Amino acid sequence: MLEAYDLAYETYGTLNAERSNAVLVCHALNAAHHVAGYYADDPKNIGWWDNMIGPGKPLDTDRFFVLGVNNLGGCFGSTGPASINPKTGKHFGSAFPVVTVEDWVNAQARLADRLGIERFAAVMGGSLGAMQALQWAIGHPDRIRNAIAIATAPKLSAQNIAFNEVARQAITTDPDFHGGDYYGHGVIPRRGLRLARMIGHITYLSDDAMMEKFGRSLRSGAIQFHFDVDFEVESYLRYQGDKFAEYFDANTYLLITRALDYFDPAQDYEGDLSRAFARAKARFLVVSFTSDWRFASSRSREVVKALLDNRRDVSYAEIDAPHGHDAFLLDDPRYHALVRAYYDNIGREIAP
Amino acid sequence: MLEAYDLAYETYGTLNAERSNAVLVCHALNAAHHVAGYYADDPKNIGWWDNMIGPGKPLDTDRFFVLGVNNLGGCFGSTGPASINPKTGKHFGSAFPVVTVEDWVNAQARLADRLGIERFAAVMGGSLGAMQALQWAIGHPDRIRNAIAIATAPKLSAQNIAFNEVARQAITTDPDFHGGDYYGHGVIPRRGLRLARMIGHITYLSDDAMMEKFGRSLRSGAIQFHFDVDFEVESYLRYQGDKFAEYFDANTYLLITRALDYFDPAQDYEGDLSRAFARAKARFLVVSFTSDWRFASSRSREVVKALLDNRRDVSYAEIDAPHGHDAFLLDDPRYHALVRAYYDNIGREIAP
Repeated sequence: MLEAYDLAYETYGTLNAERSNAVLVCHALNAAHHVAGYYADDPKNIGWWDNMIGPGKPLDTDRFFVLGVNNLGGCFGSTGPASINPKTGKHFGSAFPVVTVEDWVNAQARLADRLGIERFAAVMGGSLGAMQALQWAIGHPDRIRNAIAIATAPKLSAQNIAFNEVARQAITTDPDFHGGDYYGHGVIPRRGLRLARMIGHITYLSDDAMMEKFGRSLRSGAIQFHFDVDFEVESYLRYQGDKFAEYFDANTYLLITRALDYFDPAQDYEGDLSRAFARAKARFLVVSFTSDWRFASSRSREVVKALLDNRRDVSYAEIDAPHGHDAFLLDDPRYHALVRAYYDNIGREIAP
Repeated sequence: MLEAYDLAYETYGTLNAERSNAVLVCHALNAAHHVAGYYADDPKNIGWWDNMIGPGKPLDTDRFFVLGVNNLGGCFGSTGPASINPKTGKHFGSAFPVVTVEDWVNAQARLADRLGIERFAAVMGGSLGAMQALQWAIGHPDRIRNAIAIATAPKLSAQNIAFNEVARQAITTDPDFHGGDYYGHGVIPRRGLRLARMIGHITYLSDDAMMEKFGRSLRSGAIQFHFDVDFEVESYLRYQGDKFAEYFDANTYLLITRALDYFDPAQDYEGDLSRAFARAKARFLVVSFTSDWRFASSRSREVVKALLDNRRDVSYAEIDAPHGHDAFLLDDPRYHALVRAYYDNIGREIAP
């Protein structure tokens, strides 16, 4: 149990007098509250969804008041395992409680209370971010007008859990993990984090996209007969792994993957997703990408079916994009046009 | 360079007077020469393809003389990194040369010379084993009547290489790896091997098969809010990883995954697989499984197309099986009936 916690957040645009134009943008595994734009003193640090959110963009900050939050347990300003536990004066580490998607959403709701936002015009996210949008619709049905769920699934498959488990095992079996209390040892489980990120990256890209991007291209033009980098794809993965291990907290990685594993709104209803959505009142936009094998389109269609079973208002688009799961972060013109049109409708709906 | 090497092999059945009934069975990543049956003093140690090979089985050892070989660089009796280097009196370790599929096939050909086998009735394998069958057809066209290539690809995709790379990085960054010379340190890179095997297992099973086998079943019936085993699939992967780390040599794992990465018979022909197969004279049976995402059916069809471009005699079957890549090791009745019928034809062909 945490007695208190901080949440780091950013806002964009202006909350209107009716407080009706607020949009919450939820992050997935490795992102945070910095969803768009850049800081005056750090112009290279561009928000993770900057192609989607900003003045004149699909989610137009000239029109909407956008809120980005670093989730509870995160490592970008919100209270997390790397924070100092006021009771002990030491890092929480392994003592940080396991958090769920429901916990995140409830914490976001408390933040909304503080900001005077009674009801969001929309809650939007991709992947794990989209699960939060779904959970908002189920858990706080009167506080969300629209749920925009992109590249998501109503729960992880055994294969999804399996990839998370290998990533977690890479971290927890790293000798520098120290049971999660590495902070006091002056080390981080860098090897494990690096492997976790490499595994993740494979699942974010489609086989075809990877083939298109790297093929079998060799770093030095010829096979070297060694176990160091030969292929460009190896270089890419190592680079991504190294970079990630520089800035991400390993305990947060464990927490977030566990929240993914545990998310299953149907579990309280004998696995019946339709019953889980019976309480939802929001309108829904569900978007999937044909080449996404992490959360295939069939998984989004499970959500759509459950919503239709409840006669909810749902728009569904399956975008024929080659990039795999990562497509939700890219600016495919059809995808962005769709989201823009959906927000135009929301704009009309909330117009005073 | 190795000045000499041993190859461990087993034979089943009787070589006929014409020496025309020999079938070479090639292994994939973690198997070896013990392809079928069991030893009198070790009845539980059943060969890895025992459902396929034996008296009265699809590859009938009452009719064919079957040869299984542990490939060069292996860890089940053939000379490999864990063997003692006669020059130094120590384990080869990191000094063991990187071997290729071509090296394996050439070593198998030398073994065939010793055994007096001029021409194999068939060379057969699944996955990496099938790549050896393809390489036999290309590299030794007069020494192979039939190539039976199951669940394979003419080369790895970027995604295939990426999975191998993560597995290798897990091993080589394990502090107990010691640059490949762990033998002298009284340790093995167990953590890395374990992770490598866990990653491998995910790619051997289809998402559906994993969902069917494990679903989201919980080990203890309820979520425990920890990072230890909650889901059955986690328990399965850890068990498989632990077991593998008990018996497999980490350096051999590196060698075999590298041989997989490097295999690309088209590379000497500007990527033109049809030209690579121009030298082949064998008849071919190519089999793929619809749910195999490691080596999807489209990859087998690349082989079939290249063979047809050369007007080679090729039979191709795409088996609608749910098990993923592992299907090649299972006894799907349609699959086994097909292989049986193909061997019946070979039997007629070689009848004196």
